[in-house]
Amino acid sequence: MADFANYTPGEYAKEHIRITPTTLADGRDFFYLDDDPEYVSGAKTRELKDPRPLAYRFAPHLDADGNEVPYAAPQMRRDPLTGDWIPMATARMNRPITAGPGATAKGNPLAARKPGDPYQDGEVPDTDYNVVVFENRFPSMVRVPGEDDSTKFVNGNQLWEQKPAAGRCEVICFDPNEDGLPADLPVSRLRTVVEAWAFRTAEISKMDGIEQIFPFENHGAEIGVSLAHPHGQVYCYPFIAPKMEKELQHTEAYHEKTGGNLLKDIMNAELEAEERVIMRNHSWVAYVPAAARWPLEVHVAPVRDVLTLDQLNDDERWDLASMYSHLLKRGNAFFDKGDGKGMDLPYIAAWHQAPIHDPRRENYRLNLQFFSFRRAANKIKYLAGSESGMAAWISDTTPELIAKRFHELGDVDIAD
Amino acid sequence: MADFANYTPGEYAKEHIRITPTTLADGRDFFYLDDDPEYVSGAKTRELKDPRPLAYRFAPHLDADGNEVPYAAPQMRRDPLTGDWIPMATARMNRPITAGPGATAKGNPLAARKPGDPYQDGEVPDTDYNVVVFENRFPSMVRVPGEDDSTKFVNGNQLWEQKPAAGRCEVICFDPNEDGLPADLPVSRLRTVVEAWAFRTAEISKMDGIEQIFPFENHGAEIGVSLAHPHGQVYCYPFIAPKMEKELQHTEAYHEKTGGNLLKDIMNAELEAEERVIMRNHSWVAYVPAAARWPLEVHVAPVRDVLTLDQLNDDERWDLASMYSHLLKRGNAFFDKGDGKGMDLPYIAAWHQAPIHDPRRENYRLNLQFFSFRRAANKIKYLAGSESGMAAWISDTTPELIAKRFHELGDVDIAD
Repeated sequence: MADFANYTPGEYAKEHIRITPTTLADGRDFFYLDDDPEYVSGAKTRELKDPRPLAYRFAPHLDADGNEVPYAAPQMRRDPLTGDWIPMATARMNRPITAGPGATAKGNPLAARKPGDPYQDGEVPDTDYNVVVFENRFPSMVRVPGEDDSTKFVNGNQLWEQKPAAGRCEVICFDPNEDGLPADLPVSRLRTVVEAWAFRTAEISKMDGIEQIFPFENHGAEIGVSLAHPHGQVYCYPFIAPKMEKELQHTEAYHEKTGGNLLKDIMNAELEAEERVIMRNHSWVAYVPAAARWPLEVHVAPVRDVLTLDQLNDDERWDLASMYSHLLKRGNAFFDKGDGKGMDLPYIAAWHQAPIHDPRRENYRLNLQFFSFRRAANKIKYLAGSESGMAAWISDTTPELIAKRFHELGDVDIAD
Repeated sequence: MADFANYTPGEYAKEHIRITPTTLADGRDFFYLDDDPEYVSGAKTRELKDPRPLAYRFAPHLDADGNEVPYAAPQMRRDPLTGDWIPMATARMNRPITAGPGATAKGNPLAARKPGDPYQDGEVPDTDYNVVVFENRFPSMVRVPGEDDSTKFVNGNQLWEQKPAAGRCEVICFDPNEDGLPADLPVSRLRTVVEAWAFRTAEISKMDGIEQIFPFENHGAEIGVSLAHPHGQVYCYPFIAPKMEKELQHTEAYHEKTGGNLLKDIMNAELEAEERVIMRNHSWVAYVPAAARWPLEVHVAPVRDVLTLDQLNDDERWDLASMYSHLLKRGNAFFDKGDGKGMDLPYIAAWHQAPIHDPRRENYRLNLQFFSFRRAANKIKYLAGSESGMAAWISDTTPELIAKRFHELGDVDIAD
């Protein structure tokens, strides 16, 4: 159970958010983040016992022939042609020995447990919650206790390095209402989600072997999200992800050349240019980047120099919750079928924070990259040959046209 | 009209493929590549006149207020955070002044013209064809005659470089039968498609400002292909695409370290490891790469050291047509609904060839990267947060499992 050694809540969180840790039946970490005053004050306590008869998650499993085999730790291989590490889903081959009730997920596993039902398939022990965070049941990256962490070579050939994908995958449920949209959540609930991002960043930063912590949100069936329940994820890579590596190369080269911080200078340049800035408050600036690659793309940068989510102060966390709420609402209004009602926007919200150990981290700067595949009310941008095959994005619009649409929806400025 | 100064057909093509150039009504280049003996012998000639009343493609256009404005050359901007050039679809804002018949595409523009119909919307002047290649009518990259090619700065800020996206986009129709699948085409027709790839590579390599020629095929409604007609494209970038840049960095570093060619050594290592090799003939080797990132991925490498498609000799072109045919058929058999019939596989076939001017080209090597988003008969892999936001691919399978499925479908070896 986590001891919170690395997490220090700010004044607001100390008074208004209570974190209760527990462990799921198969051994995974689970955290309630409560903003309900009855839980915060301690007047009510949380159900901590997961009633499911799950086997320990790293226990031996049965193979296709019914033989017991050790848990297969997920592996990753380095592509010699690009240098990218590719985690491979060997862990999905692990099937539970116990095929009893609760062994196979049915229904919505992110919902609260139904009262009186001890053996449901959900991941939440209690019958209600505010925000919860827990380790993914079928992670593509996980550190298996006692596993050999050394590099091996596929077929004994040094061209092909292989190592355990000893990362971590967590799920954050934003709200117990499974039909709610993140855009419709009260700012106070989003404030708790921001606290979850900061809390997990602080704690996971101290875990062995993690190099980059990536909180993100996939939203919409159009991008393959099967669970509509409002939730996000945290991928903790045991490497620096390729996009981050490229950004670090550019922020570092810029620092060497100018002494400045590229992300800060981009934010200031957008403020000076003005036309692509779509929202501002005391702590944050949101703009359509001058070289946007998606049909809808917004970057959100902190006004103050901040490297990671856990460095945000109370005011910045509140201002972020407020801006995130505006961003999601305006995203939903952006495309329109002609009835003025907008539409539930499919989007990806990707947190870029400074990596944990890489020395180039000092010249990076926290930023959120928010984008959508939607390019019209009835059209999706597909990542076809140029994007998927050559990583060469072709934009179907211009950053100024994206910003113009946001301006039409009404500007959100410091007063908000 | 092209003079073929840079294209020298081999013995086979001289006798069996005839190329007839023409110009479409709006000024675009168009080429028939005929393998029908009557056209090759000259017994029959091609219809060269495009009957559509199209305005010259770079003529002034009307803006939203009905005012005549110069043709807007497509622009590209460099993302300061990644260094990537992003072409932006300003060219799609160009609307033809003449709104007469044929000005708006309807039906299948890749079909042959209907006999007796002079004003249809298709791109092909004749009433039948074998293989045709032509410039895309609404290109995301194109060199506009007389345009100022210099770098400008967005909002006058040196962080944001902007230049004309002076590339080239071509379309290759593989066959006149609009309902045919590339997998079902005779090898002799695919041989003509290979000739088209080589021909266009040879010619476009000599055009001003092109740095990389990328023939590819998008196949399947699942990846957004709206025209089922069997066709591919050629994107000619005025820059080196991000994925190619990364591969060049790795092939060059490998050469500096070992004196060898990375792509050749990978092919030989796969041959030695054997288990992921799924097809061989005299000129080509097809294998699932040891760090495959897609649920179905096959790389095809030439046995001989070859940099670009136009360097392939006659035997290699035939052997490629044969292997491509096998690859597509086996791809369609790979996933199965349980009826043993397979399914029309959505795929991307991406040709990686040495760039045109970059000195690192000598240590690169031609290769085809073929992959699919399909991960089961009823499942698609979506590029969500990790892939789209961080360029970190998570594989849902392993290369050995992919290869195992191909082996089940029967090996294709040199004898074939």
